[in-house]
Amino acid sequence: MKKIFFCLLGSCFSVVGFTQTEDSLFLKRISDYILLNGKAYEDLRYLTKQIGGRLSGSTGMYKAEAWGLKTLQATGADKAWQQECMVPHWVRGGKDEAFAIDITSSKPGSTLSPRKSLDILALGNSTGSGKPLTREVIEIKNFAELDANKDLLKDKIVFYNYPFNDAYINTFLAYRDAGIYRGQGPARASKYGAAAVIVRSLSNSTDNNPHTGATNYNDSFPKIPAVAIGLQDADWLSDALQRGSVSVTLHTHGKFFPDTIGHNVIAELRGSEFPNEYITIGGHLDSWDPGEGAHDDGAGVVQTIEVLRTFRALDYRPKRTIRFVLFANEENGLRGGTKYAEEAKAKGEKHIFALESDEGGFTPMGFGITGTESQYQKLLSWRSLLLPYSPAVILRGGGGSDIGPLARTQNTPVASYLPDSQRYFDYHHARNDVFEVVNKRELLLGAINMAALVYLVDKYGM
Amino acid sequence: MKKIFFCLLGSCFSVVGFTQTEDSLFLKRISDYILLNGKAYEDLRYLTKQIGGRLSGSTGMYKAEAWGLKTLQATGADKAWQQECMVPHWVRGGKDEAFAIDITSSKPGSTLSPRKSLDILALGNSTGSGKPLTREVIEIKNFAELDANKDLLKDKIVFYNYPFNDAYINTFLAYRDAGIYRGQGPARASKYGAAAVIVRSLSNSTDNNPHTGATNYNDSFPKIPAVAIGLQDADWLSDALQRGSVSVTLHTHGKFFPDTIGHNVIAELRGSEFPNEYITIGGHLDSWDPGEGAHDDGAGVVQTIEVLRTFRALDYRPKRTIRFVLFANEENGLRGGTKYAEEAKAKGEKHIFALESDEGGFTPMGFGITGTESQYQKLLSWRSLLLPYSPAVILRGGGGSDIGPLARTQNTPVASYLPDSQRYFDYHHARNDVFEVVNKRELLLGAINMAALVYLVDKYGM
Repeated sequence: MKKIFFCLLGSCFSVVGFTQTEDSLFLKRISDYILLNGKAYEDLRYLTKQIGGRLSGSTGMYKAEAWGLKTLQATGADKAWQQECMVPHWVRGGKDEAFAIDITSSKPGSTLSPRKSLDILALGNSTGSGKPLTREVIEIKNFAELDANKDLLKDKIVFYNYPFNDAYINTFLAYRDAGIYRGQGPARASKYGAAAVIVRSLSNSTDNNPHTGATNYNDSFPKIPAVAIGLQDADWLSDALQRGSVSVTLHTHGKFFPDTIGHNVIAELRGSEFPNEYITIGGHLDSWDPGEGAHDDGAGVVQTIEVLRTFRALDYRPKRTIRFVLFANEENGLRGGTKYAEEAKAKGEKHIFALESDEGGFTPMGFGITGTESQYQKLLSWRSLLLPYSPAVILRGGGGSDIGPLARTQNTPVASYLPDSQRYFDYHHARNDVFEVVNKRELLLGAINMAALVYLVDKYGM
Repeated sequence: MKKIFFCLLGSCFSVVGFTQTEDSLFLKRISDYILLNGKAYEDLRYLTKQIGGRLSGSTGMYKAEAWGLKTLQATGADKAWQQECMVPHWVRGGKDEAFAIDITSSKPGSTLSPRKSLDILALGNSTGSGKPLTREVIEIKNFAELDANKDLLKDKIVFYNYPFNDAYINTFLAYRDAGIYRGQGPARASKYGAAAVIVRSLSNSTDNNPHTGATNYNDSFPKIPAVAIGLQDADWLSDALQRGSVSVTLHTHGKFFPDTIGHNVIAELRGSEFPNEYITIGGHLDSWDPGEGAHDDGAGVVQTIEVLRTFRALDYRPKRTIRFVLFANEENGLRGGTKYAEEAKAKGEKHIFALESDEGGFTPMGFGITGTESQYQKLLSWRSLLLPYSPAVILRGGGGSDIGPLARTQNTPVASYLPDSQRYFDYHHARNDVFEVVNKRELLLGAINMAALVYLVDKYGM
């Protein structure tokens, strides 16, 4: 690309043809301020590099809460505080290790190397193996095949090799499709007497990083060790099982300590006209331990703070009360979001709208909303104002884990900020979800779009 | 992000609500084929890692042309050939080096380090310094300031420190705005007797990589050395000049050899109904030397090949003749695109449409078209068919350097494939434009969108 002949995203990504209304001018001020002065990228650098992983109950969680409060206070918000909630305290407890012995290859005369290290991560909430556990592996494609083979699973390691379907354009559809094997797979294998579970990682990356995430045991059956395996290793294991039998030795150390005290970290701009109507914008402060929680959900956290900082810098005085919330414990308990909704209900607060950013710090595509038809139409009516800053795709269906409880208990319309989904599952819950894979401009554009929507909801209601 | 409650880009990025017409079904076949079987990413790996930089006249160019022909032939195209054209042969000629001496700091008593290495790259087509050239630096903000200070420039190094404006949402607007300092800056400074030019890199990256690219001298004035400098070094230099005077020593080696033979590499699927109507799809095979030309424009090249391979794999027999063109010499001469249009005119070929991908291998946003109102409306009428695969932004204004000559000589409607622009200028013409910064899915989605548009133009005409 040498010259610029044409190729300028005029109607979508520029200010050409922009109607100079009060709203469009204010949104342009938001955009300019954030692109030229935004500190979200430096905030993210601190959160990821100085604090790092911050799973509930970890020292990272405590550091992140203190940093969050200090950073929200520094914006000059009307009020900033921590809202206490009990959180689970699961620890990985040591280095997860595994290797495979290709039993067929280890027969005399074989030229194949019989032993291979496997790159694994114990699933969140999973129980450790205690000492190393060695068992024969049986590959299972899906739950129907699991049920059909239930008599063969006793004392075996069940290897769920369900693919993350690359054919979905929206990668979250592949996650929904394959995610049940991580969430329910260990419990369902345990029901049939399996000794442990290996799950193919929920990712369409080209590398071999394993991707962790929560699993949910069934109390009626034993809690068995459960791990995620990298895609290349999963393919190797499947190939080896085609050739003959394979045993795997797993060594994991996961365990729970008693629940401990965690906090949602909250700031508020008090409404000037309707102070008793609340708008919530947030992301979650906790993250899985192997990486730095940069996209999941450091991005949502620093974008939320950026919106507050920008409103203050532009001296924007909202009509309604806006809450900026860094939620606790999204990853393995949802205690923060639950507590926030409980207290809102107990205090009789009227929550008219909530927005979450928890799909990564990528280029903006638009928003999704769960609400009434008229609420959806209201968002659609603002599309031309949002178009300079994204393709402004407005979808029915949206929200976020942490604001789900508000929707369920108060019928609050909830929306998700929608970035592009293509790279998210390259990093999600893996050790490469680090600062370096977040692009500064993509991150800042997210904050611009979030600020724009919150401004419009504040001004016009929902 | 733990669970999937809502958040699914239903209307835009999925097949939900998809009308099962013949066209939509065929586009879904294209998408599935490319996402599940696409080889563009592996082609790009070869082109970047085994061949690398491929500036006109370099050994890389010759290797790339041979690879291109072989790869196009392997698709089973009806015909594949090389179209000869003379190309310029500029070489960097050695390692570009520079350091600054902060003259003020080097006075007795200063605690500042007086000498600092600068990360530079000579501009494409620029002349070398011969031996190291040392001169005092004068910072110039823009051409108005250059003209106002014309009497102060003699024998100085002019440092154009015009910012790449981060406030533009579409980064190509910043490129158009600042690009004139790279293109015209050396010639205009030479007119006033400057000895050399340093240009702030055309980038909004967060790193210090310098970004090269072509400059154009004015034959009426001496050809002076001209280099790009990394953003951090540019900021350092500007700060140092605020404090006092700075001299810089530059050592560059650029020179031209006589024009040499290069080639457009072309494949063709012959039309079954209107073989004398031509549709062209392409990218450019040449690239700047410091990196691997991955986004610029390896992406466009391998996407073009992917479209051909997919049409063959799906046994698609076009109505019109489709040409798949890997253009020569986009970066510093445009001889390939010029030759292609000349030969088309000489042979009386009727070119009804041309599409170029030369804005990187990023997530698709849509297309831009330069043509009549009715041609634009035709693209718009296909928007619902394209929506499952991108936000399908359809803009007036588009094309590409290499297909510009077709538009000028034949009035052919020309379109650009528009990917997201946020990361493009992090890599453009820099040493970090390498395979590793291209995402496989983003690259493949580009090929899907290009194939979809070419299919529709072929079927319905323009």
